[in-house]
This record gives sequence, C-alpha cells and structure tokens, in this order.
Amino acid sequence: MASSPPSSSSSSEEATTSSNGSASVVQFSKYSRRATLRSIVGRPDGGLGLSGKRAVVGGWVKSANVVKAKRGGGAMSPPRMPATDTTGLTCTEVLMARVPLIRCIAKLIAGASTVDKASSSVSYKLGPVTALVRINDGSCVPDLQIVVDSSLCPLEQVTAIGASVLVEGKIELVEGKNQKRVVELRVDKVLHIGAVNIDNKYPLPNVELLPPDELIKDYPQLAPRTTAMASAARVRSEMVHAAHTFFQTNGFFHVNTPIITTTTVAGDRRKMFRVMQPTSKSDNRAITPEVVRASIKAKTKQIEALERSESNKEALEAAELDLQRASELAQQLEQQGSADFSDDSFQHPLYLSPDHILHLETYACALSSVYTFSPAFQAESLEPNKHLAERWTIDAELAFAELEDAISCAVDYLMWLLCTVSKNCSDELKFLSTKENNGNNFHINSVVSSPWERITYNEAVNTLLQVKDKSFEAKVELGMPLSLEHMSYLVDDYYKKPVIIYEYPKQLKPFYARLMEDETKVSAFDIVVPKVGIVACGTQKEERMDKLTARIDDLSLPRDQLEWYLDIRRHGTVKHSGFSMDMEQLILLVTGLDK
Amino acid sequence: MASSPPSSSSSSEEATTSSNGSASVVQFSKYSRRATLRSIVGRPDGGLGLSGKRAVVGGWVKSANVVKAKRGGGAMSPPRMPATDTTGLTCTEVLMARVPLIRCIAKLIAGASTVDKASSSVSYKLGPVTALVRINDGSCVPDLQIVVDSSLCPLEQVTAIGASVLVEGKIELVEGKNQKRVVELRVDKVLHIGAVNIDNKYPLPNVELLPPDELIKDYPQLAPRTTAMASAARVRSEMVHAAHTFFQTNGFFHVNTPIITTTTVAGDRRKMFRVMQPTSKSDNRAITPEVVRASIKAKTKQIEALERSESNKEALEAAELDLQRASELAQQLEQQGSADFSDDSFQHPLYLSPDHILHLETYACALSSVYTFSPAFQAESLEPNKHLAERWTIDAELAFAELEDAISCAVDYLMWLLCTVSKNCSDELKFLSTKENNGNNFHINSVVSSPWERITYNEAVNTLLQVKDKSFEAKVELGMPLSLEHMSYLVDDYYKKPVIIYEYPKQLKPFYARLMEDETKVSAFDIVVPKVGIVACGTQKEERMDKLTARIDDLSLPRDQLEWYLDIRRHGTVKHSGFSMDMEQLILLVTGLDK
Repeated sequence: MASSPPSSSSSSEEATTSSNGSASVVQFSKYSRRATLRSIVGRPDGGLGLSGKRAVVGGWVKSANVVKAKRGGGAMSPPRMPATDTTGLTCTEVLMARVPLIRCIAKLIAGASTVDKASSSVSYKLGPVTALVRINDGSCVPDLQIVVDSSLCPLEQVTAIGASVLVEGKIELVEGKNQKRVVELRVDKVLHIGAVNIDNKYPLPNVELLPPDELIKDYPQLAPRTTAMASAARVRSEMVHAAHTFFQTNGFFHVNTPIITTTTVAGDRRKMFRVMQPTSKSDNRAITPEVVRASIKAKTKQIEALERSESNKEALEAAELDLQRASELAQQLEQQGSADFSDDSFQHPLYLSPDHILHLETYACALSSVYTFSPAFQAESLEPNKHLAERWTIDAELAFAELEDAISCAVDYLMWLLCTVSKNCSDELKFLSTKENNGNNFHINSVVSSPWERITYNEAVNTLLQVKDKSFEAKVELGMPLSLEHMSYLVDDYYKKPVIIYEYPKQLKPFYARLMEDETKVSAFDIVVPKVGIVACGTQKEERMDKLTARIDDLSLPRDQLEWYLDIRRHGTVKHSGFSMDMEQLILLVTGLDK
Repeated sequence: MASSPPSSSSSSEEATTSSNGSASVVQFSKYSRRATLRSIVGRPDGGLGLSGKRAVVGGWVKSANVVKAKRGGGAMSPPRMPATDTTGLTCTEVLMARVPLIRCIAKLIAGASTVDKASSSVSYKLGPVTALVRINDGSCVPDLQIVVDSSLCPLEQVTAIGASVLVEGKIELVEGKNQKRVVELRVDKVLHIGAVNIDNKYPLPNVELLPPDELIKDYPQLAPRTTAMASAARVRSEMVHAAHTFFQTNGFFHVNTPIITTTTVAGDRRKMFRVMQPTSKSDNRAITPEVVRASIKAKTKQIEALERSESNKEALEAAELDLQRASELAQQLEQQGSADFSDDSFQHPLYLSPDHILHLETYACALSSVYTFSPAFQAESLEPNKHLAERWTIDAELAFAELEDAISCAVDYLMWLLCTVSKNCSDELKFLSTKENNGNNFHINSVVSSPWERITYNEAVNTLLQVKDKSFEAKVELGMPLSLEHMSYLVDDYYKKPVIIYEYPKQLKPFYARLMEDETKVSAFDIVVPKVGIVACGTQKEERMDKLTARIDDLSLPRDQLEWYLDIRRHGTVKHSGFSMDMEQLILLVTGLDK
C-alpha cells in the first residue's frame, strides 16, 4: 500500500533512534544510503541528541586538515592538498594533536568507561595521522566534521576539496566550546570515495561563496556545490513549494499553458525566440516565389496603412521586420526555385512564448482561479551572455475579480512567501545575508510589518515632479514610463517601503488592460519593492468585446492572431484580473541579495 | 502582516456563516466577488447546511430550461436556445410548472411562515416565465441550479449556453427527492451577464463531454469549460500539488534545469526543436564558404570512421544528417557569398531540451536529492498535429542511491499520487470514468492494493517467448526492445498488474546507464502499468569515469559536448540514480482514461 501521507516537511528526514540503547543508529534517509546532514547537524540542537549513535553519512569535502600525532608535530597539509580552512578547528582538536601525552594522562585519569558514555564528550584515540574533514551533502547550511584515521584510507583522497565520501562511524560530541559545531563523526569504515583526480584539481577555489562570474561560466555544473549556490537553490525550492501551497490552499488550480506558440502580440516580437521543427524530407511545403511575392505585396500595403494612420511605433516596426524577412526569403527562392522550410515559414511561424497571460485567461474563464509556474522566453539583450533568456514566472488569473482583488491576492502571496521562507530557510538566509551580501543583513520583517503604500501613477509622477534635491536621467512627465531610477527614488528614498502603483495611462500597458471610465487610463498595477524594483505586474483584463477590439485596431495588432482570444469575450465574457511575478526578482526580494 | 498559514486545502474556500441567524450570507471566495460553487454544492452535504443563506455566485451556463406558468403550459424552450439537458429537472420542478393551482393550494395549507423557515424546503412564487439554469464556475463537478424570474433580466441572455452570470440570491432546498441536487439558488439580483452573441452561437454542442477532436482543434480556448476537460484540469492540478508535497516531504529540493540547451546527446537530435535567436543586424557572424568547406571535410571523415567501426546506427545517422545540413549551407553560401545566421549555426546551435536528466545530475551531485517539474520537447511525429511536442515531465535524481532506491522512490511516489488524487478528486474521477470512459469504472484500489511484479528484462523476454496463444507483430528476441504489444501482454494479460522491468541490455538504454558486472547489462528500470504502458523510466547513472568515457566512445557521441557532464565524475563522483515520469502518462494512469 502507499506510503502514509506526509505530515511535516521533515518527518522522513528526521533521525530517529531505536529503543535498544547503545546499538541505536541514525536512520537512513528514505531512498538514499545514508543519513542526510540535515537530520544530524541541521537539527535545532545541532546533533546533540544523537551523540553516541552510529550513522552512515555522505557528502562532498569542503575543507580538510591533517593532524600528525608526533610530539611537537603540528597540523600539516599533505602534498597537493588545496588550500584549507583551519578556522573550523577547535582548540581542543589542535591541543589533542599537539600534546598526545597530556591526552593519554587525561584519559587514564578519567578511566576507560568514559569512551562508551554516549551523552558526554568522548576522548578517542587519534591514529598517527588523522584527517579532520568538513563535508556537506547539500541538505543544509552547516557542515559535518568527520574524523578519518590514516589506517582507513589514503588521506590525500579524503582530504581533497570536492571529493565525495560515504562513511560510517559514531557521532561524538566535540570537546570544548564551539558555537558552530556540536558533534562530529568518528569514522570507522570508509564505504566509498569519489576521488578528485590529481591532474584535475578542483576548479572552484572557494567552497562557500559564489564563484566569480568567469568560473560560473566555465563550471556551472560545480557551482551548486558552493554553500552560497546551494543555499540559494534551497531557498528557491522552498519558494516554489510555498507558491503551490498558497495558491492550492486558496482554491486556485495549477495549469500549464503552451510554451511553443504562434501568437506574437503578447510580447515584443523582435525579442522572441523562433522555433524550428526538425527537418523532414517528406515535409516539403509548396512555397513558391509567387506565393511570397503576393505576401510581400500585402505586407507592403499594410505598412503604408500603418504609416498613414496614427499607430504605435512597435506595430510598424514589427510589420517592417516581417516585410524584410519576406524579401530575404523571396531572394532565396528566386535563386533556388523552391525551399524546404522546416519551420513552416509564412504559414505558422512558431515562437517560444514570452509570457503566459493570454493563454492563462482561457483557463481562468473556465476554472475561475488558476495559476501557473512556467518558463517564459525573451531575449533580454543581443549580447552573447543570455542568462536571462529563460525566466520562470508565476502567473495567477482570477475570474469574477477586479483589480482590487488581484492586488489583494498579490500582496497576500508576497507576504506569505516572505514569512514561509524566512521561517523554513533561516540558516540559508542568514548565510546569504552575511557572507554574500557584505554583512548587509536583510530584514524581511521590516518589509512585512508595515502596510505597503498605494498610489496612482499620477500621484507617483506628481511626487517625482516635486523632487528638488535630485535630478533624474529620464525626464519625469505625465504619460511617460517611470524609469528604474524613478521607481527606486519612490521606494528607497521617499516612502522607504514597498509601493503599489496603479491606474496607468493606457499607452504604458498592454492592449488587454481594462479601460477605465475616462478612457485614457487602464486598470493595472505594479508592486515596487526597495532595492529590488518591480516584483509583480497585474492588470484587470478588458472583458468588453467592443472596447477590446477597438484597442486592438488602434494598436494595429494582427487581429487574425487574436480571434481565439476574442472568443473568450464572445462566448460568455466575465470580469477577470491577474498578475505575473518573475521568480528571479522574487529570489532577490526574499534573499536580500542584490545580484 | 501576512495571511495566516493555510491549514487545509479548502479552508479559505469553505462557506462560513455569520452568527446572526437569518441575515447570514455565504462568504465571498477570497480574492473573488462571489462564493465558489465548491463552497456550496461541492460540500459533502451538497449545500444542505447553507439552505436559507444568501449568496453571490458566478459561473457559465451549462444548460437551461424555461418554464411558463400557464395552465397546462409545460417546459418550453425560448427561441434560438441551444439544445438543453432537461434530465436534471426534478419531478417537483416540472409539477410546479405544470400545476400552479396545486402549488398555490399546498402553499396555503403550509402557511406563509414556511417561506422563512431556513432549514426546510421553500415554496417560492414562480413568475409568469422563469428560467431554471444550471451553472458551473469550474471549481467542482456538480452544477448549481439558479432560478431566474423574467422580471430580472431578458431570459434569453441567461439561458444561452456558455453565457457567464454573476447573480445574488437565496440558497433554498430543492423540493422532492433528487439525489444529485440538494439546493438551488433563487436569484433576486442579476449582477452581471456575459452574453453569448446571438450571431455567434456557442460552438461546443456538449457542455459536459470532451468535444470531438476537430472542435478541440478549432476551439481549444473553450474546451476547459466542458465538465470533462475541467475535471481533467483539476485532477492534473491536484497531481502537480501531490508531486511537490511528496518530494518536499521526503527531503528533495526543487530545481529548474535549462530548457534552451546546446547538448544534443540526451535525445534523438533529429527530433529536437532548434531555437533561433532574434535577428540583429549588428550580429553578423563571419561564416565564410571556406569555414564550411573545412567543416564538411571533418564531418565526412567522421562518418567514414563511424562506418568502419562497429558503432550504433543512430550516431551514424546523426552524423549524416549533420553533413547534409553543412552541404546545404555550403551551397547557399556559394551563391550568396556570406550569410547572416541568427541562430549561430555551426558555432553553438541551440535546441529545446528533450529531457532534464543530464542537467538534473549536476544538482543531485551537489544537493543530494532533487526533482524538477519541467517541459521537455520532442517532435513525436512530423505530422501537422504536434500536440505532444511539449511534454511536462517529473524527474527525480538522488545521490548516494542505487537502482533499488530509485525504484522504491518511484513506486512510493506513484502510490502516493494515486491515493492522494483518488481521495481529493473523487467527484472528478467518478465523472471521468463514467462519462468519458464508457462506464468503464477504473479502480485505483486494484492498482495500489496488490504488490507490483518485479522481473528482469531477461525474465520478461523468456515469458514472452513461451507465449503460444498469441503472435506478436514484433519478434520477441533477447537484446531487442520490448514493443508496446509485448509490454501490454505482460501487464494486461499475464501478470494483470503493474510490472517493474529491470536490468536491460546496455544497447537498449542511454549511455549514462550504469554498466553491471557482466558488462552487457545496465542498471535501468521501467514501470509498466496495465492499459497505460510505461509510466516511469529510471537508471542508476554510471559514476565511474573510465566506464563512462568508454561508453561515450563506443557510441561515438560528441565528447566535447559532454566535458561539463564528465566534470561531475572528475571532481568527486558519487553513486546516483533517478527516474523520469511523463505527466500525460500519469494522467492516464490516475484517471483511467485511454486517450
């Protein structure tokens, strides 16, 4: 029968102890051949309660130190060992390595029985050479120190940064006071070592912090092993889970909208990625030079019409681009006679969807409350570095809901996200704010404790126009977009808290935003957060068929591409509103990082 | 401050009543201007406990009937009204419409006080013409019947199939015995009607069942409004939520792997979609005919080498395809002199990732237990109908885990999924199995109650070789793939339950599958389920650098594309295993549908 329903987020992870005292072991993680570090050093007591238990643990080496048990012989590095971090060593450890005689005397005085006393700290016998190795398996921020004797394996293998180890041993209290570390594992069996090839020195110099950009570019596959990247990944995972929990709890249904699309009106087509289907020899399209010439003629007329009418610049540019492509194709065809267009050129060019809003509406107008967590594609720049081309976004859409409802939902969601993540990822957030953020500790509480400001676009512009002590690069003017600098001034300097800006001039928002009574503004909002910028954009959608088609015609958008979208209004239209959030922006919001 | 943590999956949905008796109303759904139907007719009591309360509800018209209160006048349709389903009408309703005199008498006997008695059924006054309209807002399977008097609005608007309505009124018990319907809403205020344009008759003839294929193709945007499609969407949403819950509870972290990729070895390159970056005039690549000719020369040599060696067919075909493309390009270049390749041809061709396995491994080898829910892209056929080009898949990967661990995890996950969804979506599953599945009720319990069969690939082949009563189209032979027909025989006819097939010949599985001791088989498994087919594929990954590179060389895979992947083995390799499941296959498994 099925596994019993999970009750808490760490139930199966938690280390449990068997009832028969000294033979007790820390249970394996479910589906894995070791206990996770989260179930040992990730416990609130740092592993204290597990002292004396046996455990199998695995992980990758973060740092290591070798202590040689010779009189006067201090900690020394083996040949070829990468730079190690010795700050983690306790005084006791060093002392024990340096003065074995003292240790032996202490042991004799204390008597042999202390060795088996599980709940007190243990004096173990250090071999002639012993490695103190900090490992981490990516399940939590703290590392576990394992103590490996040279009789068990060649120490240079187990001390090489990046090596993976799977070892068995006994959890023991760390002697002395060490705020960071309560227990360590005294290894008595090495089960597996994934060595680091000596010829291929581990390429990341720092196992904690984010690698420099050029190393991330060369070794993206190893970057998640740094504490910083792993912490960010765990925070992101918690955020994804929190998103699903929030929406499912509030009666939303998760849907997936198409990613390959023929609709180009949602985003800026010049930034959209085109998709080519695999070539097939049997798949020849009958595109002749005549067809293309006719198409060019039609497109030219369209551009002339656009130039005559008072239309928007984007539509005209798109049409010109279209014409240009047609001309290039015509040229090719003239030379070759015919072409095999694997991408269905002209017929149904395919693109990667730049957002999910239009398709999400079709689900909202059937299931009422829906959300999606999907990738959206847009070439942010034409530079070779296109890291931001894929953006995962969270989009929600509600039927029978107006702008105010979408704002409430977006605000509640952000609050929920901040509270959940700050509760469940406190170690990660602390690490990131102190190590990666130059000690600039980011207080989520300051964002969630005071009510957020709500202002209209007009109020925002008027506030900016009255600013005397600062000059903006972009001119502040009613009807013009707010620049990043403008928004930063409002949230960072003026209100000093998140600001919800709503009621935008219609030319600043997409065609589907609902026209307000004055016919110049639309029901739309942005949530702007200090240091991060815009984290959410939302709109109430235009549900009135006549207003929507008028707007489409005004903007000279290709009506034929939108017939399916208009169908939602034709057949039982409903007021609906929604919002979109960019996952990467949310991560900046939650972690307080600035990159 | 933030919204309080959600405690159950319907807390905010649940209709609550205020303490002051008769004035009580059903609360609005959070972030929406009405109560969801789920909070009324979706309750376990069908809404009984809400009788007498006022509510605002919204939804789309599923069917409607107009009753004219004339002596002897039966139910009659208004002009132009689409075919309606009258089976939902109770005897009482029809009787009330037909014999108003009897009703009046009954009312007099009962006395006027019954009208205000909330917990008993109410006799209301039917106007001269009244519409009985079944609406649904997509939040649950059952419809709500609303009763609208002609004095409130033109009835042809509110009775048109597909129209959206937002109405206010009183919840009343339905008279007589009707197993399906307990309450209805007596409307006294029409807040909004999203009419169906008379010239655009609602295009879907049946509001319950899945539309025929040609209608889905023409009106995909309206299909989610059918009960069947909405039910499937809600089941899918529950499945997505169950997936996140399962993995998060078991210590997995959610990650997202790249979708646009340069790696082509994971799938069949001939089925991969190519991605073209937006054209930029400043982005001219210096690809000269000379460069291409040199490339052709190198490619031809590679093919000759492949033909000489005993290599696999796929690698050879891919190389030939590559050469063919290069030749075409060369031809174009000879004619044009140079070309502007917006897709970085030859340099870094970009593709849509056909799966997530390789990239997921990089996360598993850092965070230990990871999963992803992402779209994968593969052209399943070159037919115009490419519905399956985008497949959402769930992939999990575990470090410090062997094949057995991955199998346990996959089985537990499937069990959890089936149990959770059958518990939370019982109405949906019932509807789908009776209406869409020809009454072929699918019993999840039969799948989860008996232990699943585990056989090796060799055992499967030997079993099939002994079959006498059936001849297979594809020959059964050791070392050859099992066809769908073979697998169907094993699970549907022979074992009559899900079967886990493991230990496959290496040539049947990808290069990354871990070689077993005999060096001919690999650690891989498939889970095959009756009627559905393969729902999960898993492998233990080859963690040994020498075995992996030997395999890559054997298959003549492009080693340069895999250096990043090999890095995971170079720098601290670890045993790891995982599996992949196709969301659409899982939906078939959960719903018992066969399409």
